[in-house]
Formats: sequence, C-alpha cells, structure tokens
Amino acid sequence: MGPLLSKTDSPADLRKLSVPELSQLCAEIREYMVECCAANPGHLGASLGAVEIAVAVHYVFDTPNDKLVWDVGHQAYAHKIITGRREAFRQNRKAGGISGFPRMSESPYDAFGTGHSSTSISAALGIAQAAKLSGNATQKVVAVIGDGSMTGGMAFEALDHAAELKTDMLIILNDNHISIDQSLGGLHRHLLHISTSGAYNRFKSRVWDSLGNGRVRRWLQKATMMTKMAATRGNGSVFQSLGLRYFGTIDGNDISQLVANLRNIKDLKGPKVLHVITRKGKGYTPAEKEQTIWHAPGKFDPSTGERVGSKSGADRFQDVFGQTLLDLAHENERIVGVTPAMATGCGMNLMMEALPERTFDVGIAEQHAVTFSAGLAAGGALPFCNLYSSFMQRAFDNIVHDAALQGLHLVICLDRAGLVGEDGATHHGAFDMSILRPIPGLTIASPMDEAQLRDMMFSATQEQWGLSVLRYPRGSGSGAKWRGAGFSYIEKGVARQMSEGSDTAVLSIGPVGVRVAEAVRRLTDEKGIRPLHFDMRFLKPIDEKAIDRACSLCRRIITVEDGSAKGGLHGEVAEYVAAKHPGVAVSALGIPDRFIHQGTPAEQYRECGLDVEAIMEAILK
Amino acid sequence: MGPLLSKTDSPADLRKLSVPELSQLCAEIREYMVECCAANPGHLGASLGAVEIAVAVHYVFDTPNDKLVWDVGHQAYAHKIITGRREAFRQNRKAGGISGFPRMSESPYDAFGTGHSSTSISAALGIAQAAKLSGNATQKVVAVIGDGSMTGGMAFEALDHAAELKTDMLIILNDNHISIDQSLGGLHRHLLHISTSGAYNRFKSRVWDSLGNGRVRRWLQKATMMTKMAATRGNGSVFQSLGLRYFGTIDGNDISQLVANLRNIKDLKGPKVLHVITRKGKGYTPAEKEQTIWHAPGKFDPSTGERVGSKSGADRFQDVFGQTLLDLAHENERIVGVTPAMATGCGMNLMMEALPERTFDVGIAEQHAVTFSAGLAAGGALPFCNLYSSFMQRAFDNIVHDAALQGLHLVICLDRAGLVGEDGATHHGAFDMSILRPIPGLTIASPMDEAQLRDMMFSATQEQWGLSVLRYPRGSGSGAKWRGAGFSYIEKGVARQMSEGSDTAVLSIGPVGVRVAEAVRRLTDEKGIRPLHFDMRFLKPIDEKAIDRACSLCRRIITVEDGSAKGGLHGEVAEYVAAKHPGVAVSALGIPDRFIHQGTPAEQYRECGLDVEAIMEAILK
Repeated sequence: MGPLLSKTDSPADLRKLSVPELSQLCAEIREYMVECCAANPGHLGASLGAVEIAVAVHYVFDTPNDKLVWDVGHQAYAHKIITGRREAFRQNRKAGGISGFPRMSESPYDAFGTGHSSTSISAALGIAQAAKLSGNATQKVVAVIGDGSMTGGMAFEALDHAAELKTDMLIILNDNHISIDQSLGGLHRHLLHISTSGAYNRFKSRVWDSLGNGRVRRWLQKATMMTKMAATRGNGSVFQSLGLRYFGTIDGNDISQLVANLRNIKDLKGPKVLHVITRKGKGYTPAEKEQTIWHAPGKFDPSTGERVGSKSGADRFQDVFGQTLLDLAHENERIVGVTPAMATGCGMNLMMEALPERTFDVGIAEQHAVTFSAGLAAGGALPFCNLYSSFMQRAFDNIVHDAALQGLHLVICLDRAGLVGEDGATHHGAFDMSILRPIPGLTIASPMDEAQLRDMMFSATQEQWGLSVLRYPRGSGSGAKWRGAGFSYIEKGVARQMSEGSDTAVLSIGPVGVRVAEAVRRLTDEKGIRPLHFDMRFLKPIDEKAIDRACSLCRRIITVEDGSAKGGLHGEVAEYVAAKHPGVAVSALGIPDRFIHQGTPAEQYRECGLDVEAIMEAILK
Repeated sequence: MGPLLSKTDSPADLRKLSVPELSQLCAEIREYMVECCAANPGHLGASLGAVEIAVAVHYVFDTPNDKLVWDVGHQAYAHKIITGRREAFRQNRKAGGISGFPRMSESPYDAFGTGHSSTSISAALGIAQAAKLSGNATQKVVAVIGDGSMTGGMAFEALDHAAELKTDMLIILNDNHISIDQSLGGLHRHLLHISTSGAYNRFKSRVWDSLGNGRVRRWLQKATMMTKMAATRGNGSVFQSLGLRYFGTIDGNDISQLVANLRNIKDLKGPKVLHVITRKGKGYTPAEKEQTIWHAPGKFDPSTGERVGSKSGADRFQDVFGQTLLDLAHENERIVGVTPAMATGCGMNLMMEALPERTFDVGIAEQHAVTFSAGLAAGGALPFCNLYSSFMQRAFDNIVHDAALQGLHLVICLDRAGLVGEDGATHHGAFDMSILRPIPGLTIASPMDEAQLRDMMFSATQEQWGLSVLRYPRGSGSGAKWRGAGFSYIEKGVARQMSEGSDTAVLSIGPVGVRVAEAVRRLTDEKGIRPLHFDMRFLKPIDEKAIDRACSLCRRIITVEDGSAKGGLHGEVAEYVAAKHPGVAVSALGIPDRFIHQGTPAEQYRECGLDVEAIMEAILK
C-alpha cells in the first residue's frame, strides 16, 4: 500500500494534503483497489473511473457534515477506502464484511444507502430540504450520478422538482459515455454532443478560476451561458432547459481541475450540475480497454490482467436464455428482445449481435422497458422482456396496468431471481413471486433446471400461456442438457412429481428443487424416509390436483422457494390448503422476513435454511 | 344533440366535413359532453380542453389503421364520442357501460388502454416499432400527452429511447399549464417559457402553412430551429436537446390551425413533438374559471354551473387526513407533507395553504415522491407521503430500496385503497396489502373508521411504528366522530375485538369491518348466531394472539378485506393458521382474481361479495 494511503484514515487526513499529493493518493488508491479486487471480485471499472471524484469531494466539502450521496454506489470504492474502511475493503462484499454499496448503517459518510439506479438526486434533494427546514444553513449536499443512471426516469422527476424548489445542491454528472452496456439514447447523444463541443469548454475553464464571487463573475455566468449556446451549435443543455445551472464539461480524472471547479461552485446558490468526463476503468489498462467485461470482472491476475475463470464447466441460466431466445427468434419472426441496459448480463447480447433490428436495449429504464414491450405486443410482436428481478420492482405497475389489464401476450423473464450473493440486500430477487401472484391472468413459472428454462421459453410463446413471467437465478444450474435440444411444450399449470412418498410432501418451485431432490434422496438412502416431492413449476396457475394429491397422502406440506416466504408459493399453497384441506399442516422454507446481506450464495442459502441440510432437517422435524 | 354530431358515427363521417364544419362539430361535442357529464359525472375539464385534438387527429389521420394513444385517457371523451360511442357515452363510467378511459377491448380506435399517467410515448413507440418490423410502412402512430403527464419519469425514458430509435411517430404535447393540481416543476416553467416567447411562434405559424415538402421547407426547418433558439431567449427546448424534432407552440383549441399543422408534419420522418396550448375546461365558462374543481366536478346544473352536492353529510377520509395532518404538523415541527400532484384529492391542500414551506407537491412522480420523502427522513424530517394506492404501484421499489432497507421512519398514506368505483380497473387499490406485506420492517395498518385514521396517523409519528403504511378508501366512512378530538396512541400490532362468539371467526381489516359488524349484528339479532369478530387493524405485524384466540374458539376463520384475496390479510392468516393451527379452516372474502370494471362502489362490493349480505351468507355457509 502506498505511503499516503496508509496514513489516510478519514477525510480529515486527506485535507492535510496538497493538490499534487492528492494526485499521488489517487494513484495509490487505484493500485490498492486493483490489488483487492483481483483477489476479491467487485465492481472495479466504475470505481476506477470515480477515484478523483471521491477524493475531490471529500477534500473540498466538509463530510460527513456535508452530505455525499452516490447513485447506484458501485462506483464508490474509493469513497469507502478513504472514509475509514481502508482495511475493511479487503472484506468488500463478503459475509460479515462491508457492503459493495453505500449503506447508512455502515458509516456516517454514507449519507444514503443505494444499489439500484437513479435515486441519488431525489434523496439528496430530500436531505438538502430537510436541512433547510431545520435551519441548518451550512450543510451542503452533493449527489454523484452516472450518465447511465441519468436515463432512469426518476432522475428526471427529481431534476424537475429540484428546479422548482431551487434548493442549494450540487449534482455531479459522472459521464463515461457508457452504462453497463453501451447504450446511446437521446440523452447520451446529447451529453456527448455537449462534451465534444470544445470551444465553450476551453473558454470556460480558462476564465473561471481567475474570478471571485462578485458581480463580474455573476455577469460572466450569464455571458458564458450565451457563449455556450453558440459553442454547442445551437443545442442548450437539457439541464438548463429545466432551469438548473450547468457547468462543464471538465476532466473528471484530473484532480486539480476537479478541486478547483468544486471550490468555485461550492457556494453558489440553487441546484447546480457539474458535468465531468471520466474514463471507466481509468488507470488500469485492461479495464480501460474492455469496459463492459471489466464492469465486474471476477478474479484476475493484477499484473497481467488475465481473468481467472471462476466459471464452472456448467452453462449458466443466462447462456440458456441467450441462446434459446436466439433460436426461438430464428423460428418466429414476431419475437423481439427488450432489455433495460442488461444485454450482456442477461445473455441477450447474442440476439443483439445476430438480429440487431429486433433487439432493443432501452437504457436503465425498467418502466419504459415493460410498457414499450406492451406496445410492441399491441402492435403484433411477441416480446421477450428481460429484467433483473429486483429491478422489476420498478416496473410492477407497468406489468399490471400496461400488460396484464390489456390481456397482452408477452414474456417477462426475471433474471437474478432469488438470492444473488455478493451484491446483497438491494439486489436479491426476493419479492417477485409474492407481488406478481395477485395480478389476474398471469402465468408465473420457474424452471428447476436449464432444460426446463428452454422448454418454458418455448411454451411461453404459445398463445395459451398469455402474459408470462419466467423467473430463474443468476449462475449455473444442475447441468441438465439443453444445448441444441428441440423444444418440448409444457402444459400450463401442471406440476411434475419427482418422488412418491407419504407423511410429508415437499412442494418446491425453481432450481431450489434440485436441493430438495437431493435431500429426499439422502433421506431415503440414509433413513428410509420417503417424502413426496412435487416440482410445482408454476406458481400461477397453481396445480391444485398436485396439492390435492399431496393432501390425500400426507399430513403435512413443506413449501420450498427461493423467494420471500410471505405470499409466494407459501401463500398460494397455505391459502388453498387452509380452505380445502384443513387438517393438513403447511410450513415454509423461503427467504425470511428480514433483509439478507452480502455473502456467497451458499452462505445465504444456509442463512435462510434453503441448503440441503436445512431441507432435510425440516422434513425430519 | 347538434345536427353534425348526430350524424357522426365514426371518423369516416368526420372526414366528409369541411374545416369550418369541424369547428361547429367541436361546439356540438362540447355541448353534448357537458349535458352528459352534468347528469353522469366524469372527468369533464380535461376532455373539454382536448376536443379539437381528438377531432383533428381523426380527421387528418387514417384511424383506426393509424394508431392514436392517449395518455391517462380521461381527456379522451371527444375521442370516444366520435368513434362509435356517442350514445354509449351516456353510460360513461357506469357498470355495463363504457370505461372512462380508452380500453383496447372496447373499440379498435382505442389503440392502447390507459388510466395511469405517462405511459403513452412508450406504448406508441412500441406500436410504431412493431409496425416497422412487420413491414407496415404506412401506419402512423400518434401519442397525446399532457404537460402534467410529461413530468412522470417514464415519459422521459420513452423520449430518450424514441430519439435513439428515430422511429416515425408524432407526440402531441397537450399543454394546459396545469396537471390536476397546479404544480410548477422545472419542466412546466420551461414549457411556459417556450410558449410565451411570442416572436418565434408568430414567425413559425406564419411561414409554415405556405410551404410544401421540398428542400426549401427542410432548409427552413433548420433555420427556424436557430431562430427559435434566439426567440426563446437562449433556452433550447428539452425535446430538441434529446434529439427530437419540435414544433410549436400552436393554439390547440383552434381546429383550423391544428388540422393545418398536423397535415404539414404528418409525413415527416422520425419522432416529432407538436406542442399545442389548450385550455382546461374550454368552452364551458365555470370549468374554465375553476380548473381544479372542474377536473371531475360531480353532478351539476349545466345551465348555471351549480354543482349538485353529491357529498353526504359525513366527512370523508380525505377530510380526516387533511385536517389531522395539519393538526399534527402544528404540534411537531419535523412533520412535512409530500404528494405527487394529488394535494386536493388527498386533502393535503389544507397543509399546503397553512404551511406551504413544509408541503411538497412533486408533480406526477410517485417514484421521486417516495425517495424524496426517504431523503427528507434521512435528513431528520418526518414525512407523510400520500399516494393513491394504485399509483403507489409505481413506487414499490422506492418503498423497498430507499425507505425500508434503510430503516427510515416515514409515513406512507395510501388513499383510494380498495375498490374505487367509477374509475374502474386501472384505479382500484387492490394490490397494496399483498405487495407490501413481504417487505421487512413495515408497519401496515388500515383504520376501520375516521377516528381510527386520526389515531393511526398520530401513532405512526411515534418512533416505534417505524416505516408505516396507512391505507384507507376514497369517500366517507361510518361517521365516527374525529374532528377536534385529541389523539390516542394505538399499540402497534394489536387487533380490536368487536364481538364475542364461537364457531366462526371473522377477521377484517379496514372500513369493510363496518359491514362485517353489521352482518354480525344482524345474524345475532335475526338468527341468534354469534360469530367472533376482530378488527385486525394491522396487517403487519399481525396480531398472532388474536388469531390464536380465534382458533381456540372457532373451527373456521373468514378473512375480509377490501383488497386482493391473494396474499394480503388472507395470505397472512392462512400462512399462520396452516402452520400453527391446522384443523381450523380459513376462507376469504376479498377482491377476486380478475379485474373489476367500472360501476358504483356498492355495485363493485356486491360483485366481489363484500357487501353485508354476502358477508352474512359466508358466515352462514
């Protein structure tokens, strides 16, 4: 670890340094970050790009009295390292370690917790307004938001409101011209256009520093705005249109430029946007070159940049989704793909490369993704809209109001369903089954293995499935052969019996059924106990015959699901059994009624009682 | 009915008229609309303002081959009247009649169903893109969206995407400078600024009509854009910033101007915005004067404009909320109010008038409303954020990710919970209990009457309640005295026993409990049957002792709730009973698993088996 970093225990230490020393500190932070992330994977790319922003804000502002809110938060590693968590960073994203995202309970420097995109301006505006109401006139509030996050609608809602309230706050737009995948919406093009209009920017940064706070500067601000309008070839910035003061662009990886500009605008009144250009992966060559891969590269050799395959031999559900979607799209011209900025993550990049005109990356915009898909369906297309389960929470109303209520046929695939591991509480797909089950007309299914996912995707293209939701987790399944297989139609609402048995019936849904099957096998082999096991496959419509059969053979039922134990499979089965078969007891294994923090998936399954041993124990009880 | 309207059975009839005749037709439509809405209440104000838009679009475009998508849809009465539903409009919003909003199943002219705000651009973009993919080169797509709806973030997401795709489509921005309540965010100010910059507009409308489609016009478009930049005093339009072509502003209540401009831009490529200025309530003096009241005025005398009090003597839950919030705010300086454009509807206008600096109307922006509230709470304030239950569906992720996960203390009040009557399927608050129950740490309560709402609001300000959700319906309750009363603390998670009994226990939550109490009273009086009745008050934490008691005394439980019978109180009770008291049967009265269409609340309660008779029958069964 570098000499400056090793002495930086808090921003107070930072503030003793000179600006040239800050530059060295940034290099040391990068080196340390690469070293740590090589052994203990994390979101490296974005955090490398935002080192100077973190250092400059803590240098210029009086944190934690002044409040710094990060958007998404996976770019905040430098922030964590310099705010008392330098050593703790070695346990980043580990069970018992620190979260990979800001979290209020972790540090007074984390002014607002995060994980999902586009929330920072709303939160910062609220914090600033609360300070104003309580008579705290000195506290400053800074939000740091990426250009990707800026495409999320709620960021726009917050800008609109900030302009009305005229609240003192600073929004740093951290623009690396890339979200997780490269997507270029109107806003991206607009930002690119501003930042490449050189004339204005050169003019601006040269004159700005030489000015005080008096009338000349105020006049010049007016004048520069005019100059800028000309320099940007007739296009005003969207921020100015809304009534926010706009400054930029400046080089966000140049610490002295950043510090100087932050000092200059720090005390200006009202809501301000400082537009800084950074490079994702900055300072680590492999990460600069391949930004999408190095967004979250897994383990790697820091000296060579060679990534260590953490992949098991088994295909991931994402591979199944990606290839199967492409196969189906080749057979059915009506099929289109829609993803909110997760093409690579979910596997839709295969279709995007092969059939670009039928594949839509809409940016970080889950609400629009679903309603746009509903529009496509209304126009006669058959959309597969892929959302991460926890981000789907943004699109709940769109599923109800724009898809289900209109009886439209589209397929919503929920990736990252269930426990997700290191990303922790903000990213679990814990609630999807509970919240989607009450929506009339939905088909909700979850495959136990890879082959079933392929067949479900095919089956969901059939009219009789209607509006369908397929949920499956991150990563690899049980290794069931699927590649190059044909398609078998799965009858809607029909469960699959996995074992004959009596006394106890286990009803599972999704890949957790593989662990149930293992538990049943071991109990049979080791103890001669034979539980009945159904892979329910469908949450909705539920297979009532399967439950009737379970109730006729067994005195109790255990539901097992990789989701909240409130309202999902548990709710459906308990409601049915308590009405139709009172006398049969129902208990549940699922995600308990508390937030589950970061760790490996195995650790989380154990914590939630969803590992093989816990399932065996529940059956034995 | 006027002579032209009486012969207009479809847009084909319309297209035979001259432009001056269209002007007369518009007057006749207005007269008919006022006549119908006077006797059969509806959303009059917005629909009066949009008569010319509806007529002009159907006149210029080849509907239903061309697709017209309305945002929200409560401004689309003229559209309904001229697309084959002239007589049906007398049954607008009635059971068995037509919906007050566009609905795909109702007419081929309703290209996309709606009811909630800000979805039209996404849907229209999807429809346009589907046409393009299927090789339909002639179909045109038009979205009509109000300035209020434009503040919803997903409209921005869709604009951003439209600019990227460069899809041919027309967005008509119907700007009346008012949403339901007057709210002026940055966007509103911006639109106002554009539309009042006279120089450009005069220039524009004078030259535009005289041009063909050739090079001169294309050149002039470029030139006008430059001119406009100057005319609007240095502010470019937000649409141009994003890369959309922008035309405007023009008078949207001038049919000849509208027709001429639509003809001119109809065939232009790419996504286009036509900014039209209309007057809410146009053509009916009382509605023009008091726009908020006449948004949905109830019954009135069309000749005098005198509104017929449909109000019963009883106070509404909205009155209780509004006055109690103000009372609490006077006592507790930390309390602030937040509403997404529903200040009058929810009763927060009282606080807004008395304490404007502590009351925030954030515009139609539910996501921002909740996260802004969370930010306020993080900054030390105690926000009451009031959302209509069905619009809260937009903010589910914000409740999980920005409030619950961070352990923040705020109070979310869900107005319009349960069945809402005439607004129908898009507006029921059917899902809130089901979807909020799985969120860890929430307190979820629903008052049986007005006095309980007041006490719950007070109790929710106490630290131990934490993040709280209070749900209650539209309209008046049972008349329980509350005004001027003090505050009684209600212990979190404790039910209230309403009657002693055996055999059957009825567990209810919310005002539907009044009907349960009435059913119990009648059964006792008329048949000597004595069911046990608990007003549960809390969905979360549930009162397990109350359920234990019910199970010890009764062989069956009936849950009664004004919400989906999947996963809410029913789910909670069934899960608990099936685990702890197998042998006790649980059945449910609630909103069934289908969408419930418009009608009076009484009709809907009957349809859902939630009226007194149905409750009695369920107990007797």
